Amino acid sequence: MSSPSESFNERGQLCRRLLVTEQITLYSCKTCPYAHRVELALEEAKAKYTRYEVDLSNKPEWYTPKVNPMGKVPALTYGGPSVPPDQPSPESVKLAESLVLLEFVADLFPEAHLLPSDPVLRAKARFFIDVVGTKVMGRSYFRKDSSPDELYVGLETIQALLPDSGFAVGEYSIADAMVAPHLARALVNLENDLVGWKEGECKTVLAALRSPRFARLNQYIQDLEARPNFKATFDKEYVTEIFKKRYGNLRAQA
Amino acid sequence: MSSPSESFNERGQLCRRLLVTEQITLYSCKTCPYAHRVELALEEAKAKYTRYEVDLSNKPEWYTPKVNPMGKVPALTYGGPSVPPDQPSPESVKLAESLVLLEFVADLFPEAHLLPSDPVLRAKARFFIDVVGTKVMGRSYFRKDSSPDELYVGLETIQALLPDSGFAVGEYSIADAMVAPHLARALVNLENDLVGWKEGECKTVLAALRSPRFARLNQYIQDLEARPNFKATFDKEYVTEIFKKRYGNLRAQA
Repeated sequence: MSSPSESFNERGQLCRRLLVTEQITLYSCKTCPYAHRVELALEEAKAKYTRYEVDLSNKPEWYTPKVNPMGKVPALTYGGPSVPPDQPSPESVKLAESLVLLEFVADLFPEAHLLPSDPVLRAKARFFIDVVGTKVMGRSYFRKDSSPDELYVGLETIQALLPDSGFAVGEYSIADAMVAPHLARALVNLENDLVGWKEGECKTVLAALRSPRFARLNQYIQDLEARPNFKATFDKEYVTEIFKKRYGNLRAQA
Repeated sequence: MSSPSESFNERGQLCRRLLVTEQITLYSCKTCPYAHRVELALEEAKAKYTRYEVDLSNKPEWYTPKVNPMGKVPALTYGGPSVPPDQPSPESVKLAESLVLLEFVADLFPEAHLLPSDPVLRAKARFFIDVVGTKVMGRSYFRKDSSPDELYVGLETIQALLPDSGFAVGEYSIADAMVAPHLARALVNLENDLVGWKEGECKTVLAALRSPRFARLNQYIQDLEARPNFKATFDKEYVTEIFKKRYGNLRAQA
């Protein structure tokens, strides 16, 4: 059960807040950036939750009917009886879609400040998510018919949204949890030459990322990766291993 | 300035809340469903705001540089000095993107309950928005190369998300403000035969909408259109007139 507790927030506002004691189970997958977003938020909130790794290439038969009709990760169950994650209860609430889940975690754990309390800053965090989601994401930057120039445009779009220092809207927020998994995985592609581009172009892009042109973005990525929630949730070695199998042949492909 | 006031909410939670006294100007356009979403939210919140009609076919030269770099509606200015809308102040905050603005209005006017206070219901409202936005919107249902069957699929997706009665998540929320403008405009197309489909198919679809197959959706549309915020913001006559000019030739086109 969620039960109310009285406390003062950082603005001296007295509010009764939910004490989250409902069970939370996150169905995730280490390689999936969308699922990673939600793990970052849960870790940032220091939430107590059960994590279940879904093998997307060999999905358990109960997953789609009992957890997420879309068959995708991330998905989350909330409340209901305490059950093993591979025996989900019909009594828990089932939620899906990474951006919906980011907002849900922010709502459940207001004391984690996953969104600022100022409505304007909250709008800016959501605008960041909207622009990155619609203008940067959703294309395959590393395919043979793409080029580093397209990636540069995407990276510059992100960089242009950043304030002079700090995270996407200053303090860490769901905007950072939204973008970090994608930036980290792009680096895995670049550092391991897992692209369809011409030979040598990964090195050029990595050098550009360390050059003054991308100084702000580079600092941002370092800040994201140094955050405890990131360290606790990104298994770079594992992701690299899988990505090598998955994308190691992009250049050779017709 | 926004200033705090103490009050109890419907759950007996004592909270200091912002009293919104900053100016709000909405740049809108009567035919645009995305802009209409934000008007519905502002009306529902009984917000004091200035509305400016942007002629998108002949955009004022100051609009893109001074209000929205994307040149689109809706956009909103918040705070800063009181100025005529066609002379926007550099001191106001500029915000854009309809879904960002819906959340912003919900944040600014918590007493309007544009999102429920229960985190699970809030997630369901956002899931509704996500599914309608990604699975139903963004395609041209009325073009010559589309068919009523595609529209039926979209309408059934919306209907399947609805609870047995009430709005998208029971009480009126930003989920309803998100979808209502699109449903209303689709009806304008259907009622006036502004489609590229075969002759007579509009009548068939309108009859289907009144049949048991779409009884729940039909009730939902009636509830949306009966809401005072809808009546205050939808100029059906004007939209019909413009749509007749814009889409009256769809069937005749090659």
